Amino acid sequence: MNGGSRRAAVVLLSGGLDSATVLAYARREGVAVHALSIDYGQRHRSELEAARRIVEHLGAEEHRVVRVDLRAIGGSALTDEAMAVPTAPTAGIPPTYVPARNTVFLALALGWAEVLDLRDLYIGANVLDYSGYPDCRPEYLRAFEALAQLATRAGVEEGARFRIHAPLLTLSKAEIVRLGFSLGVDYGLTVSCYRADEEGRACGLCDSCRLRRKGFLEAGLPDPTRYLLAPS
Amino acid sequence: MNGGSRRAAVVLLSGGLDSATVLAYARREGVAVHALSIDYGQRHRSELEAARRIVEHLGAEEHRVVRVDLRAIGGSALTDEAMAVPTAPTAGIPPTYVPARNTVFLALALGWAEVLDLRDLYIGANVLDYSGYPDCRPEYLRAFEALAQLATRAGVEEGARFRIHAPLLTLSKAEIVRLGFSLGVDYGLTVSCYRADEEGRACGLCDSCRLRRKGFLEAGLPDPTRYLLAPS
Repeated sequence: MNGGSRRAAVVLLSGGLDSATVLAYARREGVAVHALSIDYGQRHRSELEAARRIVEHLGAEEHRVVRVDLRAIGGSALTDEAMAVPTAPTAGIPPTYVPARNTVFLALALGWAEVLDLRDLYIGANVLDYSGYPDCRPEYLRAFEALAQLATRAGVEEGARFRIHAPLLTLSKAEIVRLGFSLGVDYGLTVSCYRADEEGRACGLCDSCRLRRKGFLEAGLPDPTRYLLAPS
Repeated sequence: MNGGSRRAAVVLLSGGLDSATVLAYARREGVAVHALSIDYGQRHRSELEAARRIVEHLGAEEHRVVRVDLRAIGGSALTDEAMAVPTAPTAGIPPTYVPARNTVFLALALGWAEVLDLRDLYIGANVLDYSGYPDCRPEYLRAFEALAQLATRAGVEEGARFRIHAPLLTLSKAEIVRLGFSLGVDYGLTVSCYRADEEGRACGLCDSCRLRRKGFLEAGLPDPTRYLLAPS
C-alpha cells in the first residue's frame, strides 16, 4: 500500500475545467499527484497543452501522457473529422460521446496505479451540468471499482481495493467553478472547448463551452475563457 | 442490434495460438468477424504480423490494429526492456503480467463494438494452462460484462447487454490445439513466444513457449513452431 504516510493517487487530467479542479482538490487533500493525460487523437488537442500548463501551475509528482489511437475506431465527433461537433443542444447522448472512453482512460489509470503500487484514482466525472455521457454516472464508477479488484495482481494477491474518487460528481458547474476559485485554480490555463483552436481559444457554441460559460455566469465569477466569437 | 440475420462480433486477435483458435471457432459458428489487434508496444511485435497472416488465412470482415502506448506506464517484462522475460517457471503471477492489459483491450473492443452496433466480443482467455493472469478469470470477464452495460450509450438508451465469449476458458492447451486442428488452423502462422524474434521464431523457454509446446505434445499433434533453440 505505497509504504509512505502521504497518500498518493493517479489523477486523470484532460486539461479542462473539471479535471484541473480535481487536481487542485486532491493537492489540497494532501495527495501526492501522479497526473495522467491521454492523447487519444482528440480534435481539441490543445487540451493536452493545457494539461501541461495546469501541472506546472498546480504541481504534481509527475505527469505522463499516454497515446491511444481512438481514431482507429472512430464513432465520435471528437475522433472522426467527418462528424461535426454540434453547436446547438441535441436530444439524448450527443455525438461528442466517445464510445468507451472513460473505460479506456480508467483502465490506463488503473494500470499505472498498479505499476506505482497505488490504490486511488481521481476523475472529474460529473452528472449535473454534463452531456449525458453514460460513463460519468456513479453506478458506472462503482462497477469499475468492482472490476478493478478482479482485474489486478494486487486485487488477487493482496485483496486490494481500488477507489475511484469523483469529488465533482454531484456539483453544479457553478459550484465546481467556485470550488476551483477557492483552491486557486487559474481557469485561464484550461481548455474545455471541443472545437478549441491550436491556441486553445474556445468556440463558445459547443456543449462544453455552453456548460462552462453557464458555470462562470451562475457563480458570478469572471470567465477567463478566450472565445473566438464574442459571447451572445 | 445490427439489423442483419448473421451474427457479427469483435474478436480480439493477438496473433498467438489461443486467439487464432477463437477466430476460427467464431467463423465456424457463422459469426461475421471484426478482428481487433492491439499494438501496445509489446516486446514480441512479430505477433502483430502473425495476426495479419491469421486474418488472411482464416478470413474476417475486416481487421483493425489500434495503437496504445503501454510502454509509457511500463511495469511488465513485455513493455519494459529493462525487465527480463523469465526463462524458467516463477512463483505467483509472473513479470510478464501487463497491468490492466485485458481491461484496456476489452475497453477498446467494447468501443469498437459500439461503433459497429455489435453486442458480442470474443477473447482467448483461458484459466487452465495459463500464466495466472488475474484478468483471464471468469469472474473478471463477468464483471466486465456488467461494466459494459453501464458504460455505453447502447446500454443506457436500449438496455443492451454485451456478451464476452471466451470459448477456450476451461480447455487445456492440448484441447485448444485439437480444437484448432479440427477447425483447420495453421498454427505455423501464429506467434506465442514472448521473446519471439522479428521473424516470429520462438525462444522455446518462456512461459508462453512452455505452455504451447506442452499443448502440442499432450495433443499428440505436430508442433510447427520455429524454435531458435532445439527443444530440450
